Amino acid sequence: MLEHGGNLGDMVRRLGLPEADWLDLSTGVNPHGWAAPTPPPTSWHRLPDPDDGLCEAAAAYYGTEALLPVPGSQAALAMLPYLRRVGRVAVIAPGYAEHGAAWRRAGHEVVPLSASQLAGGAGTAFDVLVVINPNNPDGSRFTPETLLEWRNGIASRGGWMVVDEAFVDTMPAYSLAPSCPLPGLVVLRSIGKFFGLPGMRAGFALGPTDLLARLEEALGPWAVNGPARWVAQQALRDTAWQAVMRDRLHNEGDRLERLLARHFPQRSSGTPLFRTVLTPRASQIHEALASRAILVRLLDRHDGLRFGLPPDEAGWERLDAALADILETEPARA
Amino acid sequence: MLEHGGNLGDMVRRLGLPEADWLDLSTGVNPHGWAAPTPPPTSWHRLPDPDDGLCEAAAAYYGTEALLPVPGSQAALAMLPYLRRVGRVAVIAPGYAEHGAAWRRAGHEVVPLSASQLAGGAGTAFDVLVVINPNNPDGSRFTPETLLEWRNGIASRGGWMVVDEAFVDTMPAYSLAPSCPLPGLVVLRSIGKFFGLPGMRAGFALGPTDLLARLEEALGPWAVNGPARWVAQQALRDTAWQAVMRDRLHNEGDRLERLLARHFPQRSSGTPLFRTVLTPRASQIHEALASRAILVRLLDRHDGLRFGLPPDEAGWERLDAALADILETEPARA
Repeated sequence: MLEHGGNLGDMVRRLGLPEADWLDLSTGVNPHGWAAPTPPPTSWHRLPDPDDGLCEAAAAYYGTEALLPVPGSQAALAMLPYLRRVGRVAVIAPGYAEHGAAWRRAGHEVVPLSASQLAGGAGTAFDVLVVINPNNPDGSRFTPETLLEWRNGIASRGGWMVVDEAFVDTMPAYSLAPSCPLPGLVVLRSIGKFFGLPGMRAGFALGPTDLLARLEEALGPWAVNGPARWVAQQALRDTAWQAVMRDRLHNEGDRLERLLARHFPQRSSGTPLFRTVLTPRASQIHEALASRAILVRLLDRHDGLRFGLPPDEAGWERLDAALADILETEPARA
Repeated sequence: MLEHGGNLGDMVRRLGLPEADWLDLSTGVNPHGWAAPTPPPTSWHRLPDPDDGLCEAAAAYYGTEALLPVPGSQAALAMLPYLRRVGRVAVIAPGYAEHGAAWRRAGHEVVPLSASQLAGGAGTAFDVLVVINPNNPDGSRFTPETLLEWRNGIASRGGWMVVDEAFVDTMPAYSLAPSCPLPGLVVLRSIGKFFGLPGMRAGFALGPTDLLARLEEALGPWAVNGPARWVAQQALRDTAWQAVMRDRLHNEGDRLERLLARHFPQRSSGTPLFRTVLTPRASQIHEALASRAILVRLLDRHDGLRFGLPPDEAGWERLDAALADILETEPARA
């Protein structure tokens, strides 16, 4: 298995500090999650109903009806590689590593391309191009115009452009969702990050009707469970919460950027939900934070750290003080 | 998409009768479902923890530690065909049609074999043999000794025997779960049917460690959502409820057999959770029941009907009276 953020359980067991003491900043998930009401008992006791209103709620939120509920965008990205013949696949790297692993597992040749290689147009020569927009962990992003131009070229040769928009909800102007359906364009959306509901495992695949029909067949009927469908529908319809939360996360993302700027000479990059600092001391700082019961994400190449948003004032102060202590810098004046 | 039971929504829309008036006997799901308590909010707001105790609870219930939680046995059966090279696959038929569809989708040659062909040993010559035990919809079953003998032959040539035990919980003596892990043996278990929690989409794949590791990789991390993991764990640990429910379902299954025997000259077959009658008038009776807001499962070949258990006395009486009315037979004396 690839390593991911969110494995707090492992750390608790390894370091022996009580779980409640940990400040978990390892996931990039909104710490102010949408408060899920209790799903009705029938959501457990009946098979999920595909006509329960979830797709209508999602269509209003994403700006397109060309969508399919999936049990986490992870489930969709794992199945997509089996839905076309083996070919050459460009995947943005560094990025969420499950994409490359999934295409490789299905027998495709996977070529990692950096954001700057992609910016030069290198991705359009492949059968499939997988972009994460904005990218995780560095937050780099491409405009919809650029991506749509790439799709033109790829789709004209029967190829696919897969855009993982797991972190786009705070910057909807970057989303290709409203452009769907377009031939060869698959957009993956997650409910977990922005809505702070990662335990729910619900997301959507957006794309051409025939492609979604094949994905639906492959995932099988009732892929998303009843309680998750019910909670997701309520969350997607709560536009007032979404507007307030988008502002709040932008403010907190800016605050995190300023906090990191006080302690690291390197400039951080990211999205409102996380910020990443490249530093040669990443492993050492990761351990030093862990010994203070603060868990952040050590990048796969051990060349940087990704910080999620602290959930409360105490968390902000702990992070600030810990970094000051470790890096011998000045904490913010309270 | 293949047709399944449980599409009450379609019928409600087609016939216009209010949903609350329907007696839904189309699914084979226990109508006396385990009453799920409300999962803790953290189950929504955190990524699922693989060490949350679910696997231990499942190991105690299934009698083996060689298991992997999956988002419904459906998800496992859909992915398994991609985990081995293309070959010849025997699938019991008639049976749950998603098995054959999944293997065919992944490029394998699928040969349907009847229960009596299988009983003659015809299944052991294939690369993969898929058995549903007990079978759905006819309830036919093979003893563990027979199945283990078949597995010997298949596994010795590097093949797999996949046993879908979705309906075995009421007859645990038939289960191969306690025999796992054995090379080439994959057992699929469902929580939905016996526990009456089909909306949860949780199940288990049981098998050799290396095969489960590959399935886990392919399904991706956090395949089962947090609330479902929490509810499943409580249900699997409630051994008192399980014992009482097993007896109750046997009694109700017998009652359903007697009820059907009053109205049909053909003998029904099945399991405690459903009974099936083969009759040339199946389509006509299906429609006549639907016009009385009673939904049963019309078999794919339209040559029989599958009846689930009514949820309450009113349901038993309605079914009895409706069949008497349609078939001009005598209802039970109340």
